[in-house]
Amino acid sequence: MQSVSANTYSVHFNDKAYTELNTHLEKANYSKVFILVDENTHQHCLPSFMSQIFGDYNYEIIEIEEGEINKTIETCVQVWHVLSELDADRKSVMINLGGGVITDLGGFVASTFKRGIDFINVPTTLLSMVDASVGGKTGVDLGSLKNQVGVINLPKMVLVISSFLETLEERQLHSGFAEMLKHGLIRDKKYWNELNLVSDFNKLDEFIYDSVVIKNDVVMQDPTEQNLRKILNYGHTLGHAVESYFLESESHKTLLHGEAIAVGMVLEAYLSNKLTGLSDDSLNAIKKTFINRYGKVSFTDEDIKNILTYLKFDKKNSHGNINFVLLKTIGECQIDVIVSEDLLYKSFAYYKV
Amino acid sequence: MQSVSANTYSVHFNDKAYTELNTHLEKANYSKVFILVDENTHQHCLPSFMSQIFGDYNYEIIEIEEGEINKTIETCVQVWHVLSELDADRKSVMINLGGGVITDLGGFVASTFKRGIDFINVPTTLLSMVDASVGGKTGVDLGSLKNQVGVINLPKMVLVISSFLETLEERQLHSGFAEMLKHGLIRDKKYWNELNLVSDFNKLDEFIYDSVVIKNDVVMQDPTEQNLRKILNYGHTLGHAVESYFLESESHKTLLHGEAIAVGMVLEAYLSNKLTGLSDDSLNAIKKTFINRYGKVSFTDEDIKNILTYLKFDKKNSHGNINFVLLKTIGECQIDVIVSEDLLYKSFAYYKV
Repeated sequence: MQSVSANTYSVHFNDKAYTELNTHLEKANYSKVFILVDENTHQHCLPSFMSQIFGDYNYEIIEIEEGEINKTIETCVQVWHVLSELDADRKSVMINLGGGVITDLGGFVASTFKRGIDFINVPTTLLSMVDASVGGKTGVDLGSLKNQVGVINLPKMVLVISSFLETLEERQLHSGFAEMLKHGLIRDKKYWNELNLVSDFNKLDEFIYDSVVIKNDVVMQDPTEQNLRKILNYGHTLGHAVESYFLESESHKTLLHGEAIAVGMVLEAYLSNKLTGLSDDSLNAIKKTFINRYGKVSFTDEDIKNILTYLKFDKKNSHGNINFVLLKTIGECQIDVIVSEDLLYKSFAYYKV
Repeated sequence: MQSVSANTYSVHFNDKAYTELNTHLEKANYSKVFILVDENTHQHCLPSFMSQIFGDYNYEIIEIEEGEINKTIETCVQVWHVLSELDADRKSVMINLGGGVITDLGGFVASTFKRGIDFINVPTTLLSMVDASVGGKTGVDLGSLKNQVGVINLPKMVLVISSFLETLEERQLHSGFAEMLKHGLIRDKKYWNELNLVSDFNKLDEFIYDSVVIKNDVVMQDPTEQNLRKILNYGHTLGHAVESYFLESESHKTLLHGEAIAVGMVLEAYLSNKLTGLSDDSLNAIKKTFINRYGKVSFTDEDIKNILTYLKFDKKNSHGNINFVLLKTIGECQIDVIVSEDLLYKSFAYYKV
C-alpha cells in the first residue's frame, strides 16, 4: 500500500511501515529509543512490533495504565520523570505504540520534554489509525474536559499496521468505524455509501487507507484549524459533551469515543436538517445507520441539561458562542453555524423517538 | 526607544510599549484578557500597568505564588483549571506580568491551553527583560530539573517597561546584570567593557536595549538552537547544576539565577582557558568581575561531587556526553566542546582559590 505524505512526515502501511521505520532509526542515530505502551499493547502488540525492528538500539519500555481515565497531566508527570531517570536527552525518540490515549499523551509528553524530542506514532486501534494518526494534535484531559491541554506538533512518521486490529474487541472496532463514517459524511458521499455496506471488520485495509487520505487532505489544507479543518469536528461538539458527561457521571457506563460521536452525528444531522439544508431523506439515512450499528443511548431530561453545560468548554468556541459544523448534504459541510439552545434540546428529542 | 523586531513579534520599550499594546488589544478583539501575576507584581506592577491600558476589555487577574519553587506543573494545573472555570477560549489572551517564573510558566500554560492561545510577555525583572523576553522558550521545572518540560513558542509581543525595575531589590538587579555580562562575553567585547564600568543601576535603559538586540540577533539566526543559539548557554551548563543543587539542598541558601550563572561563567572561563585558547589575562579579568560583583560561593568537596551529578540532566547533552560552550576570546565562543570530569573538578579548585 502506498504511503500518504503529510507536510513533513508520512503515514506508512503494513510491511512498508517496518521498512521505513528501520531505515529511519538507522539514519537518525538516536541516543535512546523509548517505547510507550499500556498493559494491553505491551502484551499484545509489542512482541510482534519488536520482532520487526532490526539493529541494536538502546531501548527502554515505558508502560502506563490503559484507558481515557489515565490520559491526564498526572500520567505525563510520571512519564517525564521516568524519561529523566532513564537519561532521555534531546536526541532520544519516543515511539507511541497504542490507541489514542497513548498517541495523544505520548505525543504531548515528547513535544514538551526538554522543549521537544522526536516521536513516532504506531496506532494500534482502528480509531487511532484513522483519526489520531494524522494531524499532529496531541494532548491530555483536564478533569472531564477532553484534550484541554496539548499542542499541535507533528510526529516524525506514522505507522499503520493493520494486523494489530486482530487484538481488538468488536466494540473497539465499531468505535473507530464511527470516525470513518464521519469522513464519508463530511467529504465523500461515495465513501459513505461503501462504508454502509461493510459488515466484515477483518477486511478494512482499503477503507483505513481512504480515511487517512481524506483526513490528511483536510489537515494539509488547514493545519491550524482556521477554516476547513473544522469539518473534522462534525459530530464532536455534542459528541464530546456526551462523552465527557458519561465519563464523569457515576451512574452511567462510559461510552467509547466512537459511540459518543455516533450520538453526536445523529444530533448534529438533525441540526443540519433544520439549519443548513440537509434533506429529510439524508437525515433519516444517517440516523438509521448509526442506530443500527451503535444502538440507542438513553438520556433523561436531567442528563441532557447536564450535557449541554459541557458545551461551553468546547475548544472550538469563542466569545461565548457555540459553533457547530453542520452538513449541507452528505459529503459537504458548513462551518461556524451558531445554534440556539432550544434547537439543541429538540435534537435530543429527535434522537430519542 | 526603537522597537526590536524578532521573527513574528516585536519587543517594545517604555511608552511605546503601552501604545503598541493598546493598539494590539483593540485590533485583536480578544474574548477575554487574562493577566498572570504573582503577589509581588500584583501589588507593585499591576496598578500602574492597568492605568495605561485603555478600552473596556473583559479582564481576569490570575495570581500564583512567587518564586522558582512554584515554577511547576502543579502550578500549571491550577492555572489551566482557573482558565477553564473562567471560560477562557481559543480567542483569549494571557498577559504574563512578572519575572522569569511568570513569563516562562505563563508562556507554557498559554501555549498548551486548548492547544495554544495568544500570550504577551511583560517582564518586570531585569533578568526577564534581558533574557526571557526574547527567544520563545517557555517551560517549568520538574523536581529540581530546571525547564525540563516546556515548548518553544513565540509571544505576540514583549513589553519592556524599565520603571518596573524601581520595585526590585538590589540583589535582583545584580542577578539580571549577570546575563547582560554574559551577552558581552559571548558576543561583544566592547559591551563587556562598558558593563564593567556600570555602577548605577538606575540608568540601565540603554544597556537593556543592547542586551535585547544581542540576544535577538542570535535567536533570529538560529531559533531552534541547532548551532549559534547554543552560545547563550555560556556559564549555564555548570551554572544550572549549581542552581539546581542549591535549590534542592536543605543546607544551602537558594541562589538567584544570575548568582548561579556568575559562578558558572567563572568555572567555564577556566575550562575555556584550558581548552579553547582564552588568554590568562581574560580569564583573570572575568574572575575578578564576577567575584567583585557577586562575592564567592562556598563549595565543599561533597557539594562539588553532587553538583556534577546534575550535569547529566542538562538539556544540551546527548549520547551521554556533556557539551559546553566555551570562550575563545571575550566576545567569541566555540560550541560543542566536550570536557573531562577531571577538568570540571579543577575548575572548582580554580574558583575557590
